[in-house]
This record gives sequence, C-alpha cells and structure tokens, in this order.
Amino acid sequence: MAQEEIMGYQIDLNSDLGESFGDFKVGNDAALLPLLTTANVACGWHGGDPVVMEKTVKAAKEYGIAVGAHPGYPDLMGFGRRDMKLTPAQIKAYIKYQVGALDAFVRSSGMKLQHVKAHGALGNKAMVDEMTANAVCDAVLEYDPELMVFGHANSLFLEIAKDKGLRTVSEIYMDRAYLDNSMLVPRSQKGAMIEDVNVAIERSVRLITTGKVLSITGKELTMQADSLCVHGDTPQALEYLITLRKALEEKGIAIRGLQR
Amino acid sequence: MAQEEIMGYQIDLNSDLGESFGDFKVGNDAALLPLLTTANVACGWHGGDPVVMEKTVKAAKEYGIAVGAHPGYPDLMGFGRRDMKLTPAQIKAYIKYQVGALDAFVRSSGMKLQHVKAHGALGNKAMVDEMTANAVCDAVLEYDPELMVFGHANSLFLEIAKDKGLRTVSEIYMDRAYLDNSMLVPRSQKGAMIEDVNVAIERSVRLITTGKVLSITGKELTMQADSLCVHGDTPQALEYLITLRKALEEKGIAIRGLQR
Amino acid sequence: MAQEEIMGYQIDLNSDLGESFGDFKVGNDAALLPLLTTANVACGWHGGDPVVMEKTVKAAKEYGIAVGAHPGYPDLMGFGRRDMKLTPAQIKAYIKYQVGALDAFVRSSGMKLQHVKAHGALGNKAMVDEMTANAVCDAVLEYDPELMVFGHANSLFLEIAKDKGLRTVSEIYMDRAYLDNSMLVPRSQKGAMIEDVNVAIERSVRLITTGKVLSITGKELTMQADSLCVHGDTPQALEYLITLRKALEEKGIAIRGLQR
Amino acid sequence: MAQEEIMGYQIDLNSDLGESFGDFKVGNDAALLPLLTTANVACGWHGGDPVVMEKTVKAAKEYGIAVGAHPGYPDLMGFGRRDMKLTPAQIKAYIKYQVGALDAFVRSSGMKLQHVKAHGALGNKAMVDEMTANAVCDAVLEYDPELMVFGHANSLFLEIAKDKGLRTVSEIYMDRAYLDNSMLVPRSQKGAMIEDVNVAIERSVRLITTGKVLSITGKELTMQADSLCVHGDTPQALEYLITLRKALEEKGIAIRGLQR
Repeated sequence: MAQEEIMGYQIDLNSDLGESFGDFKVGNDAALLPLLTTANVACGWHGGDPVVMEKTVKAAKEYGIAVGAHPGYPDLMGFGRRDMKLTPAQIKAYIKYQVGALDAFVRSSGMKLQHVKAHGALGNKAMVDEMTANAVCDAVLEYDPELMVFGHANSLFLEIAKDKGLRTVSEIYMDRAYLDNSMLVPRSQKGAMIEDVNVAIERSVRLITTGKVLSITGKELTMQADSLCVHGDTPQALEYLITLRKALEEKGIAIRGLQR
Repeated sequence: MAQEEIMGYQIDLNSDLGESFGDFKVGNDAALLPLLTTANVACGWHGGDPVVMEKTVKAAKEYGIAVGAHPGYPDLMGFGRRDMKLTPAQIKAYIKYQVGALDAFVRSSGMKLQHVKAHGALGNKAMVDEMTANAVCDAVLEYDPELMVFGHANSLFLEIAKDKGLRTVSEIYMDRAYLDNSMLVPRSQKGAMIEDVNVAIERSVRLITTGKVLSITGKELTMQADSLCVHGDTPQALEYLITLRKALEEKGIAIRGLQR
Repeated sequence: MAQEEIMGYQIDLNSDLGESFGDFKVGNDAALLPLLTTANVACGWHGGDPVVMEKTVKAAKEYGIAVGAHPGYPDLMGFGRRDMKLTPAQIKAYIKYQVGALDAFVRSSGMKLQHVKAHGALGNKAMVDEMTANAVCDAVLEYDPELMVFGHANSLFLEIAKDKGLRTVSEIYMDRAYLDNSMLVPRSQKGAMIEDVNVAIERSVRLITTGKVLSITGKELTMQADSLCVHGDTPQALEYLITLRKALEEKGIAIRGLQR
Repeated sequence: MAQEEIMGYQIDLNSDLGESFGDFKVGNDAALLPLLTTANVACGWHGGDPVVMEKTVKAAKEYGIAVGAHPGYPDLMGFGRRDMKLTPAQIKAYIKYQVGALDAFVRSSGMKLQHVKAHGALGNKAMVDEMTANAVCDAVLEYDPELMVFGHANSLFLEIAKDKGLRTVSEIYMDRAYLDNSMLVPRSQKGAMIEDVNVAIERSVRLITTGKVLSITGKELTMQADSLCVHGDTPQALEYLITLRKALEEKGIAIRGLQR
C-alpha cells in the first residue's frame, strides 16, 4: 500500500479501563493510558469501584484522553460477561445509573463525558438484539442526547442509534476475527482471536485505510473504522499497543481522539 | 400558644424514600409522597435500585416534591445502619458515585437535584465526626457546590458545611428525643422515641415557632428548624404524617419546600 | 368424591421461606410455618441472609418442619427470577455453596437437611433444560446423595434425578395452571394463576387423590403429587393456606411431611 | 544456634488462598500450594467465589494440604479489611454461613475441614475484642466443636478459645513486627513489616526453636509457635516461601501439618 493512499487517515484508539475493584487489580491502566485516545471506564457493576473510577478519570484527564462510560450487567462475579434476561426498563435504568455515577467523577474533574459503550454480554446483546439496542440508546438519549455511543461496525445497534439521532462511533477490533455478518467470532470458537500481531496490525491498517476486511470464511466485509478497540486486560496488551501505534504512525495514519 | 405568635412560620417536610430494592418492598412511598415537600431518595447502596430510583424521582416530580440524594455505606445487608471504617477518600468517592447515579434520573426527568442527606450510620457519623463531615461536604462541593446539605440542628456537620460555603438545611426530628448536646438519643436507649403522637407534634410546633425544645434531661435547647424529618418506614408513618400536617395547618405553620 | 376413595391419601405442604434480607422483610414466615410440613429456606443469594437463615431454621425445628435448601442465581436485585447464562460448573458450585451455607444452620440446630429445591429462574430452567438439570443433580449428589430433590411433576428434571439415583419429590402447585406438557403456564400469560381459591383447592384435591388435572387447554394430565407448593410471599398466603388445610382435612387427606 | 538445640522442632506453614473472585485474580495459589501444609480458604465474602473455592480445595487435596475456612466481613469492595460494627449474633451467623459454604466443597472432595481462621479486620478485632472473640468461637463451637481455631500467639482470642474448649493453633508471622503486647504492629505504622528476608527468617527460626522474639521496642516476648503465616498476595511471596523452607530445613525444623 503506497503511503499516498493512506494520507489523511486517522483512527481513535479506545480501551476498557478502570476495571479493578477494591483490592482486586485488573489490567495495566497506568501504562496503557498515555498510549490511548479514548478510555471506556467501568462503572462499578461488572468492575470498577468509586475510588478506582475517580482515579481513572483523573488519570485520563492528565493525559488528555476522552472518557466514556462502560456500563454492564449487575454481575460482578461474572465480570458482566454472562447474559441476563432483563426487561428494557431495567436495562435503561441500569445504564442511566451507571452513566450518572461515572459522570459524577467526570464532571467534578472539569471534563465532559464523551460517550457510552455497553460492556460484555450487555454490549454483545445490544449489537444484535433490537430490544436491547433500543434500551441502551434510550438510556443515553434520556441521560444526554449529545453523548456518542460506540458500537460494532455494521451492527444493528449503530443503525438503531443513528435512527434515533445519536452520534455514533463505528468500532473495529484489532485482534478479533469477524463472521460474515460483521459480528465478532465468539471467543469460544476456533479462530476467534487473531493471534499473530503482524496479521492483526495489517488487517487493522487495511480496515482503516480501505474499509475492507476478510471474514473468517474469506468474505470481504466493508466497515467504517472510527475507533479501534485495544484490549487492556491481557499481559501482552502494552506491547501490543506499542507495536500497533508504531505501525500506524509508519503508515501515516494519525492517532487522534474523536472530539475535534 | 396564640395564633399570632406563629404567623409567618413555615417548615419543610422531608422523608427517606425509594428504599425498596428489587422485589424487596420498603415503606409506603406512594401514600407519603403527596404529603411531603422534600424526598431523600436512596441511591442503591443501602437501599434503592435503579428502577426504584427512576420511579421515585418521577413520582416526586408529579407531586412537585424536591428531590435530594440519600447516599449510604456499601452495606445492603445492614441497610447502611452499621458503621464502617472508611478513609475520607473512600467516603468522598462513594458519595459522589451515589449522588451522580441518582442525579441521572433527576436530570433526565427535567428536574434539578436539590440536596444531599447522608443516610444511617454514615449520616450519624458525619454529624459528630470531623473527618467524616469534611469528606461528605467535600464530595458535595466537588459534585456541585450549589447543592444543599441536610444536617441535624446544632451539629458539627452543619458548622463545617457552612464554613465550606455550602447551603445548609437544619433538620429536626418529630419523634426523637435529644441529648443535651442536641444530638439524637440513640435508638438503643430508653426514651429515644417520642411515642405519644400528640407530644411529638407539640414539641415540633414549639420547635418550629420558638426554636426551643427540651432535651431528655430537661435542658432547654435552641435549634433552627428548616426541615422536619418524617420517618417513612414504619406502618404508622402515614397516619402520623396526616396528623402532623393537620396540626401544623391548624397552627398556621405553612408546609413549604425549601426552594423558593 | 366419596370419602372412601380418598382414605389413605396424604400430602406434604411446602413453601419458600426465609427470603427476607437484612431490614428488607418478605413474607409472613411466623404465621405460615406452623401450618406447613416442609420449608424451602433461601440461602442468601436471591434472598435470605445468615441471620434470617438461622432464625428460620430454628423456627422450623420448633414446629417440627423439615428443612430444605432453596438456592438461586446470584441476583439479589432480581430475586433470582431472571435467567442468567451460567456454565454447568458454575451452577454446580453455586448450589453446593448455598446448600452448605444453609446446612451450617441446620446441622448446628441438631437437624438434618432434607432436600434441595432450586429457586426461581434457576429452578424453572432446571425443569426443562438438560444441562441445568444435570448440574443441579450433580451438585446434590456431590454434596450428599441422601438428600431429596424437589421438581415439578412430570419434569425432565425428575427423570434425570431418578436416573442419577436421587430421591425425588414430585411437586404440584395449587394455584397455577398447567401447559399440556405439565409445565407451569408462565406468569406473564393469561390464566397462569388459578384465582378462585375454591377451584384451586378442588383441583389440588383431585390431583392428590386421582393424580389427574386438566391443562389450560383442557387436556387431562397425570401427575404424581408428593408435595404441594404453597406460596408464602403474597398477602393472601395465610388465609389461602388455612382454607386449603381445612379442605384437605375434610377430605380425609393427611397433611404429613416426607420423612417417615 | 547449635543443630542439637533445635532437633525435634516442627512448624506448620499456612497461607490465605482462594481469594480470587470471578475474573479478578489474586495471589499465586498454584505455585504456593505445594510448599504449604495448611491453606486458609476464602469463603466468598471478602474474596473467593464458589468456583474458586471448589478449585482451591481440590488443589489442596491433590497436594495433601489441610484446609481451613477463612471467613470475613461482608465487604468485598474493602477485601474484608475495614472494620464493621456488627452484633455478636451477626458475626456468629456470618461465620457459620461461610464455614458451611466452604465445607460443602471440602466434604464433597472427601476431605475434613481442619480449622477456622477469621480474616482481615474481623480477624484482627477477634484477637483483642472479647465480644468478637466470643462470637467467632461460638460460631465454631456450634458448627463443629472438633474444628481448630487459629489465633495470634498470646492473643485474648486464644485464651477465650481455650476456655471454651476449642482446639487452638498459636500463629506467628514471619514478616511482621510485634508490639509489646504481642499483637502485630499495624501496617500503617513504620517498621510494621520486616523487610529483610534474612532477618525475618532468623526471627522465625528463633521463635520456633526458643519461643522468643523481640518486640518493636526491644522487649523480649514469649510465644508459642504452632503455625507460621506466609502471605500469598505479594509478588515476592513465592520466592520468600522457597527461601524460608530452605532455611527451616537447614535448621532441622520439620515442616509438618497440624493433623497428626
């Protein structure tokens, strides 16, 4: 790919942060934060606690990183990764509660909350289930219609969010394989993770610059890449992120936050 | 007491509401709400859950009742009534979290949060313990310095809050006896509760109109009465409140909210 | 129905008890207990807390009522009534944890735990889902293979439990309508509850004495009635239970616990 | 110290394990376990969850390590390290609940629960507060009077436990300094931790072989050393333990569990 082709491209780098809970430490936030442009901060239900939230928001401010809320199911024991059968009213209220709780720290730090990205099983369900997508979007609309919402590229969720007039961010994943319908290959399935960093980075660069990526069956998918999600909870996360940033910079792709 | 003496007096009536949790029902909010002027709404830690919070805030709006946050310790099993040894940073973060969570429902209902009143063991400690009082006040200041804070009449808490420039509400209790230092006689002690409704009401009227009340030892205390706290979690609460309102109205004491 | 026909019939009466949590009171255990023969005691996850569990077990002992564990999902906010997607290993461990916790109180009261009955959404799923049924049964087998398990009459769960060599108790519901496949009509569906007490009692008597009951579509179902479940969390529960007991006694049906 | 002097000495090595919660990983259990003789297993309240408990018990069985229950306050967010003001009845019920829950896994693994060691703030309070010590001991007595209880050497707790007829284990700490009253120097105080491994080991060896150790002020204390507590939640824990074991073996001190 010639350098000229990708002149002018840019990408936001987001990661899920602030997921430690009390004495239970998760991730490597201090090291990752300076390398990101957007932080999705846990809100105390699947991870995070008020002290961690406050600290994470302050650190994000220090590095000039945008902050969004990362609400999840009320399932700390399952880290919000197990589906729960909730009513739309419950989902809506649970999200508003968590977003408001995080916003307390954002506002008292003199920042402005940028977005909402649903976590784990709630996030996955919102991508494909109309009722859940509506509930998440309605929660955001009722809380603050100016907030952005993050969703998987090509998801039903993004469609619904756009229809409702929300500002949407189309998200891609560096190290995850895609199904033919643009959704992520479930982690339980073989080939779900792109193990080879170089392959992962090459896919990401291609996606950012051409909007194209191959599904796990070889079908070419077209995706809008506003933000690239980097995982923060693996030991390799830091090294991965450094390698990625270097590759993006070499390709002339600007790493730039969404608020501009 | 002659009618003339009490012309022009007024009082706010507040009660702790929204303390149900999931299928666990507490109190009689629907019946009490229309008779109050201020609601202290639980924030999900000692009681309350997001669905209950949303419903309570909406009901308060319907009746034109002011809403405040009623944050407590992270102790649902003890209903926030058991002291916990927390650091100031923890108290501050825990309060901001809960206030923000409640505010999500207040703001999305088009209302404005009026105040913060700490619950149970946290509230009691804040009245007399300087470190806790500072932490509660700092949380409110950082969240929104325009918010009022509720505190027991003559408490160290109100002094500290005033010193910090917060808008304070001096609260009296209708059915609780006072120690010589103006604090409440602990419930575990004999005579803590004023059992006779008529006595309780007479005391309240005298307090509102003269600022005077006798302590449990017979010492005359002077108190400012901005708001009178009515308990909502007893079966007699409703009857009590109706009797109180009638007595206040007969004495010409206006029942009026704080925001004017 | 002639008195002779039902001579010798007997039924166990079970109810879910001990579901209060801290200051959150549920049900009317003190009044119901003396009228039952079996108590399913909540284990702290969907309801119940250690103090409540201890008190409930002691009360059951006082009245000579058999005690079983009533474990549920880790979802206090949803009272264990919302399905969660758990692995078999999680279900098994969660049940063993809760059964052991309750057994602490049972054993230290000098009693012997009688049975396990899964609660709410977990219980409903166990009736029809093979994986869940296996997990529940395996938990009981690993904990104590002598324990009985309660299950809906004609359920897959009872089949699986029998195949695994567990002692099974076939349970019927007095006030719930049945689908053609012997499962309960979901509460969300019209006609789920048998509203008329007399109809409910007549159905129950017929079921106990003939093993026959009509489904919601009018199909005759055959069921084994070892124990009849009485709901304890409704205001009418007490009156209902008194009426039922009287009717059973008039029909000569002995109300008798399972351990004999 | 001559080899002859310490011939015949032996010590139990215990550590707090199984404190991970869901996806929140704590400690290095897999590496530590084979080097210990006794495991204090968290019971789900300050740390641990049923899946972790089951796994930890099975691993202990594999290595022939004795298992005890390590119950704590209901304060996951504070890891049970913050004092809570509970009633004796609450403490007793909370301990029985947790011990029974852990015992479910111990019994279903074909093992026998060895002991109870209270965790964190609850454990510290039990050492010096008569009411708390009584509540902990009574819980154990009611659950199973054959269980051992662990307590700090010379503590009020051990006295009370002995008076009640419980089997007591007098515990020493390798890396913690002592006050003149034999209690641990609080972590918040300077000099609380013995930073130098060699000094820590030398102290431990002297304690095990002579029953003597110097307090932080230089006073000689006499202690019975049945079991030595090794911390498992620090990154250095493994290396520390290996060094300790080597030193003990060189001194001819047998590392041997308590059940004999």
